[in-house]
Amino acid sequence: MTELAFQDFYPESLDHCYGCGRMNELGHQIKSYWEGDESVCHFQPQPYHIAIPGYVYGGLLASLIDCHGTGTAAAAGYRAENRAMDTEPALRYLTASLHVDYLKPTPLGPVLEIRARVKEVKGRKVVIEEWIVVNGVTTVKGEVVAVQVPDELVRELLEKGG
Amino acid sequence: MTELAFQDFYPESLDHCYGCGRMNELGHQIKSYWEGDESVCHFQPQPYHIAIPGYVYGGLLASLIDCHGTGTAAAAGYRAENRAMDTEPALRYLTASLHVDYLKPTPLGPVLEIRARVKEVKGRKVVIEEWIVVNGVTTVKGEVVAVQVPDELVRELLEKGG
Repeated sequence: MTELAFQDFYPESLDHCYGCGRMNELGHQIKSYWEGDESVCHFQPQPYHIAIPGYVYGGLLASLIDCHGTGTAAAAGYRAENRAMDTEPALRYLTASLHVDYLKPTPLGPVLEIRARVKEVKGRKVVIEEWIVVNGVTTVKGEVVAVQVPDELVRELLEKGG
Repeated sequence: MTELAFQDFYPESLDHCYGCGRMNELGHQIKSYWEGDESVCHFQPQPYHIAIPGYVYGGLLASLIDCHGTGTAAAAGYRAENRAMDTEPALRYLTASLHVDYLKPTPLGPVLEIRARVKEVKGRKVVIEEWIVVNGVTTVKGEVVAVQVPDELVRELLEKGG
């Protein structure tokens, strides 16, 4: 896929996140894209991302909901302003709250599909609803309340450099 | 500390979890203990557990809330039955739902203290409320609804071996 992901537009100095930062060599480096009004991210869990034998560790699933959610919030922020993700000022979101319902155990092995939809945009706050699909079955539902990082903090971090 | 942690009593075949399993060499291997009616766990984040520079990755904090919660649920289950954690049958809990409120950014560097209290026990379901303290400040609050793993599944996994 040559299309750039939401995370590819994060400014370098805000791009260290273990879940979604390109600069974090040890992290998950997730990549999220629009598919119409939904966003999607695929992730291949590793054998050590285990909960009990055969199933994915819930903390990983929560992390994927978290970072795909903040990524989608950023993309939604640019969309709401009718501008491309490579335009200034940079928008970056942090998680205010995270909720995850584990509907059924998530089998460890197949690629996970994390999907999201913008539920609400209210000023600097964006609510994202999400779900994870494995082999066509939704095993997890989640919701992220993301808040835009204050401009001063973005500026401060940008000045510090990557 | 020579006292055994909640997680040290997990049966080997249920002890692979990335967050809390002794058998997972690549995982967090958290250790939780009672302190009166509260349980406590200390965790040292690594430099790569970063969100934005200077702050801990929210997915890690969610994971710690998750696994310290299910550990505390197990310990509470034994307490409710007035028996030690090395007695049979083994009790093991999975997360049904997880909620995390990020009250303020969690500084990356100091050891984190994750604390929990049993809020409700209802049959096989235990609700655990939690909070994370750094340098004396509570930065995260969370709640885990944990459900006891069905006996058949415990038996099946025990028969498969570790």
